[in-house]
Amino acid sequence: MPQGQPLTVPDDGLSTRQRRNRPLLMVHTGDGKGKSTAAFGLSIRAWNQGWNIGVFQFVKSAKWRIGEQTVLERLGRLHDETGEGGPVEWHKMGAGWSWAKKQGDAEDHARASAEGWQEIKRRLAAETHDLYVLDEFTYPIAWGWVDLDDVVATLRDRPGRQHVVITGRRAASELIDVADLVTEMAKVKHPMDVGQKGQRGIEW
Amino acid sequence: MPQGQPLTVPDDGLSTRQRRNRPLLMVHTGDGKGKSTAAFGLSIRAWNQGWNIGVFQFVKSAKWRIGEQTVLERLGRLHDETGEGGPVEWHKMGAGWSWAKKQGDAEDHARASAEGWQEIKRRLAAETHDLYVLDEFTYPIAWGWVDLDDVVATLRDRPGRQHVVITGRRAASELIDVADLVTEMAKVKHPMDVGQKGQRGIEW
Repeated sequence: MPQGQPLTVPDDGLSTRQRRNRPLLMVHTGDGKGKSTAAFGLSIRAWNQGWNIGVFQFVKSAKWRIGEQTVLERLGRLHDETGEGGPVEWHKMGAGWSWAKKQGDAEDHARASAEGWQEIKRRLAAETHDLYVLDEFTYPIAWGWVDLDDVVATLRDRPGRQHVVITGRRAASELIDVADLVTEMAKVKHPMDVGQKGQRGIEW
Repeated sequence: MPQGQPLTVPDDGLSTRQRRNRPLLMVHTGDGKGKSTAAFGLSIRAWNQGWNIGVFQFVKSAKWRIGEQTVLERLGRLHDETGEGGPVEWHKMGAGWSWAKKQGDAEDHARASAEGWQEIKRRLAAETHDLYVLDEFTYPIAWGWVDLDDVVATLRDRPGRQHVVITGRRAASELIDVADLVTEMAKVKHPMDVGQKGQRGIEW
């Protein structure tokens, strides 16, 4: 266990252990690479703790499958077969949310985003998962497809011990205010700057 | 495959495919959370491509095992058993490098760091791995335990198609100059600021 010492100890009536185990709302934002990659890295850490993981990809390009999905779903099957780690569900908007019977109009991103958020609200109320990865969720918020005030209130008042990580550029300041941990991934250099496109194994 | 378009196309005589598949030197630096997590997230992506992965943790605290090690080594065994994904080796300085017969003086971090780098140089020359994760490698460089000029020249001139990702705060400008992809993970907010210490599943 790491020995980091906080600079301040708040007068909140909680023990160190209680405070340590409070659920976190995490935001990975900024224009640099690593926002989603770090969220999926966090997921394998969580899997190893036996946590129940729910991934929700709010992106059209989720029609194609990234390596993390294959690996996390493989780890989920390993859990089902051997009891190692935790269960994993991976849902993506691009190909139609996997819980929805009717795939709906795949082009209607606004409605699909809103449906995704409603399902996440139901799961938060039911305390379905230990870790929620809301990948690229800042965009439907920024575009007004999902109501920011509703997101902030729902996440702030979520019951139990549910961790949430949200990724995407331009996270709203209201979201940052309510978050416990915010990292800005800032681009210093990217191969695209010198004409090199994304490649297998690095970008997906 | 993502459709990102580079802003410039260099006059380097390479085709888009050749340029796309050039090996990358990546640096995750900055004071924020997510540097190592994103590197290990990249490793699961690489595993899924069948790449040979070598992780080298340059930290004393590597005596304790983080979740990513358990999961990546589990994925490595899965590869050995079923042929899925790629092979994985995980070496850490804190408990003595796993390739070294003699564990040496565990307290002599300077010598252990130098030994780690010499082994990495041998492996780069032999083209042992497809992806090298040099975790927290900026620190032995900053402390002069590993020679920066040697690191820069070795990485710049490495043969074949070997990707390298280096994590740690305060990456040297010479390292950033020679890197292809640099992300600065900047801390916007961290639970430690309000007295909440790191917790299982989130920090390790």
